[in-house]
Amino acid sequence: MTDTIAAFTAILGKAHVLTGADAARYGVDATGYYPCQPLAVLRPATTQEVSAVLSHANASGIAIVPAGGRTGLTGATHAEGAVMLSLERMNRIRDLRPAARVAVAEAGVILSTLHDRAAEHGLDFPLWFGARGSATIGGVLSTNAGGSNVLRYGNTRALCLGVEAVLADGRVLNLMGALHKDNSGYDLRDLLIGAEGTLAVITAATLKLVPAAKARATAVLGMKSLDDALMLLNRVQEASGGMVEAFEYMPDTYQRQLRAARPDLGLNLPDIHPVSILIELGATAPRDTVANADGSLPLTELLTEALEPMLEDGTIDDAVIATSGEQRRAIWERREAASEITYAAGTTIDTDIALPLDRVTAFLERIEPELQKLDPGAGNLVVAHLGDGNLHYTALPTRDDPALHDAVVEAVEDIVADLGGSFSAEHGIGLSKRATMARRKDPVALDVMRAIKAALDPKNTLNPGKVLPPAG
Amino acid sequence: MTDTIAAFTAILGKAHVLTGADAARYGVDATGYYPCQPLAVLRPATTQEVSAVLSHANASGIAIVPAGGRTGLTGATHAEGAVMLSLERMNRIRDLRPAARVAVAEAGVILSTLHDRAAEHGLDFPLWFGARGSATIGGVLSTNAGGSNVLRYGNTRALCLGVEAVLADGRVLNLMGALHKDNSGYDLRDLLIGAEGTLAVITAATLKLVPAAKARATAVLGMKSLDDALMLLNRVQEASGGMVEAFEYMPDTYQRQLRAARPDLGLNLPDIHPVSILIELGATAPRDTVANADGSLPLTELLTEALEPMLEDGTIDDAVIATSGEQRRAIWERREAASEITYAAGTTIDTDIALPLDRVTAFLERIEPELQKLDPGAGNLVVAHLGDGNLHYTALPTRDDPALHDAVVEAVEDIVADLGGSFSAEHGIGLSKRATMARRKDPVALDVMRAIKAALDPKNTLNPGKVLPPAG
Repeated sequence: MTDTIAAFTAILGKAHVLTGADAARYGVDATGYYPCQPLAVLRPATTQEVSAVLSHANASGIAIVPAGGRTGLTGATHAEGAVMLSLERMNRIRDLRPAARVAVAEAGVILSTLHDRAAEHGLDFPLWFGARGSATIGGVLSTNAGGSNVLRYGNTRALCLGVEAVLADGRVLNLMGALHKDNSGYDLRDLLIGAEGTLAVITAATLKLVPAAKARATAVLGMKSLDDALMLLNRVQEASGGMVEAFEYMPDTYQRQLRAARPDLGLNLPDIHPVSILIELGATAPRDTVANADGSLPLTELLTEALEPMLEDGTIDDAVIATSGEQRRAIWERREAASEITYAAGTTIDTDIALPLDRVTAFLERIEPELQKLDPGAGNLVVAHLGDGNLHYTALPTRDDPALHDAVVEAVEDIVADLGGSFSAEHGIGLSKRATMARRKDPVALDVMRAIKAALDPKNTLNPGKVLPPAG
Repeated sequence: MTDTIAAFTAILGKAHVLTGADAARYGVDATGYYPCQPLAVLRPATTQEVSAVLSHANASGIAIVPAGGRTGLTGATHAEGAVMLSLERMNRIRDLRPAARVAVAEAGVILSTLHDRAAEHGLDFPLWFGARGSATIGGVLSTNAGGSNVLRYGNTRALCLGVEAVLADGRVLNLMGALHKDNSGYDLRDLLIGAEGTLAVITAATLKLVPAAKARATAVLGMKSLDDALMLLNRVQEASGGMVEAFEYMPDTYQRQLRAARPDLGLNLPDIHPVSILIELGATAPRDTVANADGSLPLTELLTEALEPMLEDGTIDDAVIATSGEQRRAIWERREAASEITYAAGTTIDTDIALPLDRVTAFLERIEPELQKLDPGAGNLVVAHLGDGNLHYTALPTRDDPALHDAVVEAVEDIVADLGGSFSAEHGIGLSKRATMARRKDPVALDVMRAIKAALDPKNTLNPGKVLPPAG
């Protein structure tokens, strides 16, 4: 180990090879579930330094765990007995070209820093989620992060035009085009995105920017069924030409949990409806964003008019439309209290599943009797990015029992598989979902993934033990 | 060979194993540039039959060339001395779910058939190009086809949620989710899309549908420069909230060529401007599509209002906005005459390049003196899907000289590489661009592609010799 430290010190300088207590700080992530003591933490500042580090590590049989802001939820940066490679010092925005709507950012750039820089030009990098003040570009690429704008702009993969990455053996892979069309061989960019640092270390990326929304219209709707809600989504998309940015589902049970846990927040509607939907539109065009003489917003009128026929025919039972920024924030607070309610619930069984949009109802109808069979009296907490089919279904068991936990997770997986869904919608696999990968992923797909891993990283240098479960 | 035919006949039946003259018909593609005599043509009707065919071929060392409508432009289905696998009988639309906005189509479904089926539900599969009456879903996926709607909807990859494919050894890979979020391991779907049948045979796909445009507004603008045009694109995108579906560039030289070759078509504007832009918006929302009392279209008003300030400040010198379907068709005819003019030009040196949006001008400024150095007096013909940075730059040399052809292609490649562009924007590699791949693709990327090919198809059964140039 002394030789190893010396070798890395020769590459990076003493200040950027951390050990002992300095390294231990990096053994903590945002979840707190995956504590570890890295052997060392390396902090390269350039692609060349990353290359030199990997070249040495690969030749010497040293495992390297790449890390960004360590805000992931699956333990993908767990580095017990391994060397962590922190990209935090690669934090330059190399280029920002407003006319071409692209930014070139290094892996260590904090997501919110990119938001701020884009905003200076009236632009946005439309990837938004709670941890944006700590998460890095390298991390969001490596996990193909989702968040609250996926419905309109897609996940991270859809927002990336090119990447620069270092292979396990230190070779630099240059896929840094800023191109909207490039059919020159296999799509290596999308292969590295979402690979959680197991195939290469992403060091920089060319990212798409979009015009920043200049106005928003936000409403909460009380409805009878999710099928009605899906029809509503399609209708508002059609009326607005695709301006829906958020379409969030909260069931009646959630409203009651919210009222009990946070009575100070109040409810959006006087009554509790089987289905509540938070819908938000974003607009850039002056015809939607320039206020009328009476101060009202054309975008709000557009939403109101789109909803009216469904209010009249009873598809929507009740509705509230935000008329101020304050009201909008209150609506979002009532949605974002979900994590607080989950934490307060004590023992929980969390999932991050995706379903085809028209099969969310079927999932909820089928899981409830299964849960009651396994644990009579168990509750649940459900919120969803319904527009993406992404459901955060949390079972609230009556007891803390690992066997029950596994049985519930498997029951969820059974139904998800049967409905053509995914057991991991936006958080990835890391350490925590490897058993599920082994159980649920198409075995041929797993074999192909293992073959690709072996082809690109034959010595298993990069983030070993993550994503892919052991064969057999 | 007799044994081989017998084996395939046992799998598919006599009627679906073609040889001799029956097979020869399949040796012709839409370009006519790549004639061949396949040893046999196999026409499986199910995924299981494709699997059985590949399993036998892989075990017996028989090369298999997958083919769809054979409308590709790079010779990717050339099958001299090989067995062609035609997916034409796998032509079922397995499912079409309007509420979820997805269709599940087999590889042999003709693109225009899917358009028609989607249209019955007021929906569109927004991938449009000239060969849509012959091209198949398997082919558009395997080439990651582009076309005229990429600006708004992306290329084929962006329109595909899941694929089913058969590996070289016959194993079936099931990645058929209809999910908008799925972070469960490596992105194998996007790896197979655009691989031109060298990694697996795609047998079916889950495809995204979108609301069909109910109205369009089309204009031609006379302008001074491409930089102004790019600013215009950004402004109209902002004014319309992203409704621009086509943004096509025609330079002054093109206008003169058009006037000479097709005087019957006339010109869009009375004068010839340095830059002509064809812009088209598509809309689904009633506020844009329901005609006013006087018969005018709100979408046309929106476009007119967006252009007005630029007409006033001289950014746009002249403009014509279509006021009838007939006028719109005439505008498009003047753009689509490009291929006719190219064919009539005799000797041509064609390219299919992509550039960052803000570097198209730089390319054109730099290529012209290079061309004149190589061939004084040579002409050019340029049209572009400018909104995608996709330029079809055609040199018109003064003589038919292979050495000159190669020198011009290399000069184009030099500048494209220097500007961060791609030598293949939408047509792919196939046979015809392998030398360019060898010269121009990042060598590390080529190595990684070869490693992936070897990992997935170790016996080189699938479309050997395509896409990847030989090593070294």
